Amino acid sequence: MTTAPPDVGEGPLAIICGGGTLPFAVADAVIRRGRSVVLFPVRGWVDPQAVARYPHHFIEMFRYGRFHRQATAAGCRDVVLIGKVLRPALRQIRFDWEALRELPTIIRMFRGGDNHLLSILARLFEERGFRFVGAHEVAPEILMPQGPIGRREPSPRDRADIARGVALLSAIGPFDVGQAVVVADNYVLAVEAAEGTDRMLARIAELRGEGRVRAAGRTGVLVKAPKPTQDWRFDLPAIGPSTVAGAARAGLAGIAVMAGAAIVAEPAEVGAAADRAGIFVTGIAPDERGP
Amino acid sequence: MTTAPPDVGEGPLAIICGGGTLPFAVADAVIRRGRSVVLFPVRGWVDPQAVARYPHHFIEMFRYGRFHRQATAAGCRDVVLIGKVLRPALRQIRFDWEALRELPTIIRMFRGGDNHLLSILARLFEERGFRFVGAHEVAPEILMPQGPIGRREPSPRDRADIARGVALLSAIGPFDVGQAVVVADNYVLAVEAAEGTDRMLARIAELRGEGRVRAAGRTGVLVKAPKPTQDWRFDLPAIGPSTVAGAARAGLAGIAVMAGAAIVAEPAEVGAAADRAGIFVTGIAPDERGP
Repeated sequence: MTTAPPDVGEGPLAIICGGGTLPFAVADAVIRRGRSVVLFPVRGWVDPQAVARYPHHFIEMFRYGRFHRQATAAGCRDVVLIGKVLRPALRQIRFDWEALRELPTIIRMFRGGDNHLLSILARLFEERGFRFVGAHEVAPEILMPQGPIGRREPSPRDRADIARGVALLSAIGPFDVGQAVVVADNYVLAVEAAEGTDRMLARIAELRGEGRVRAAGRTGVLVKAPKPTQDWRFDLPAIGPSTVAGAARAGLAGIAVMAGAAIVAEPAEVGAAADRAGIFVTGIAPDERGP
Repeated sequence: MTTAPPDVGEGPLAIICGGGTLPFAVADAVIRRGRSVVLFPVRGWVDPQAVARYPHHFIEMFRYGRFHRQATAAGCRDVVLIGKVLRPALRQIRFDWEALRELPTIIRMFRGGDNHLLSILARLFEERGFRFVGAHEVAPEILMPQGPIGRREPSPRDRADIARGVALLSAIGPFDVGQAVVVADNYVLAVEAAEGTDRMLARIAELRGEGRVRAAGRTGVLVKAPKPTQDWRFDLPAIGPSTVAGAARAGLAGIAVMAGAAIVAEPAEVGAAADRAGIFVTGIAPDERGP
């Protein structure tokens, strides 16, 4: 009764929150496990009402001073960074004194992909005694399970599309591109980069509507996987009910994500949405991932 | 004086024409070289007025009979296939007797990427005694030269983006995806798949307009290259004045295509458009292509 589970560290957990419902799902899971949380919502990205029921302090991007003081005062050492935040243009950033001293480092962040940016950010925090942990480490129940959520399962043709998608994602991994592709009947319809998954799906819906992509019933699979170079503490792929809606509008047969390597914040809602839309949502087992 | 250049075969050249100005640029170049042409515009894709000044016979997709008869009567053995044609939905095709006999083969075409489709199509024609040749073989002057067209040249930063784009295209080559990517400041903004280059550029313009992609003046390069698995007879990458306009709207610094491995039907217009837009258009030399 005195031993904490190995994934729960000491003291309250600081959660730096971007947009979406994911930060709250993580906070709730951590609280259920008996650890207290302090939320640091990024101003402009988080609904003040939704965050009101947690201890919280609003922060601004690239102004570390306030976070540093409040997190230290609250006794937080472990930090989770989760939710949608877009990389701002450098000229849009208002720096505080703390950030100004790091300016050369911050400017370096702005060259290269998101992974690069986040790993430099992590180092800045860690030099100040904080430790970044992954949402999956403090709340593993948010990870995608193996096999289907909901009633439908991928057909053999869908499984072939999934295998091709996994192989393609692995080939583009070293380039820090997106985390998702759409393959239909062995044909690559879309590769995600800066636009994100929702827009990629909207594009396929458009191409299908115009007859630029042939549509023979529901075909094609959205395949999501972490980049091989990715730091899981910052950016695991995530799906939710809106991903299901987007895949359905795109005329796809289903969604496949790596089991244990993608976040499904609301699995019950995702399964129900998939059943209503008539598509599958499945967690790819390790033995389906190919060589 | 009696020996034809090695790239010019015997008899008139049959040109199966899709949309755009490219088929006419090829026809004109072949005529200038002293070979006669017979155009076979695909109905619905080619302007009847534009084709009127060449000997021609309209054909329909997947109805080989007419092409076979007319091309044979005209003494054509070599066939060039060029211009935009979208892969129709299988149910939209009206088959003739000739095509019906090949139905199982045609259905097989519809699984897998475009290269796969075209290589099967080529085999069907070749079994009937025709020979597919590449537009670049009969009219090499339409290929992109080495170095810049127009006044601007890529900066060292642009050259780094070009190298990254070339490496990424080479990594996705085996998957029969698109032929183009956009890299800005070492960050992959977009990967082309079924949507085509114009839409990919429009997407970047949108993301930049919304601030979802940071915009620090003109940054980023559209990099186009043939897929390593690609059959150059059917589908070389092509750029034209509209590509320049799209790249300019997307806020890019320039366009880089493989010298000798991409078609520029109207180089003078492309150079002028690039100068007006303030962007570079350059042919990547073999030694810039990386390992």
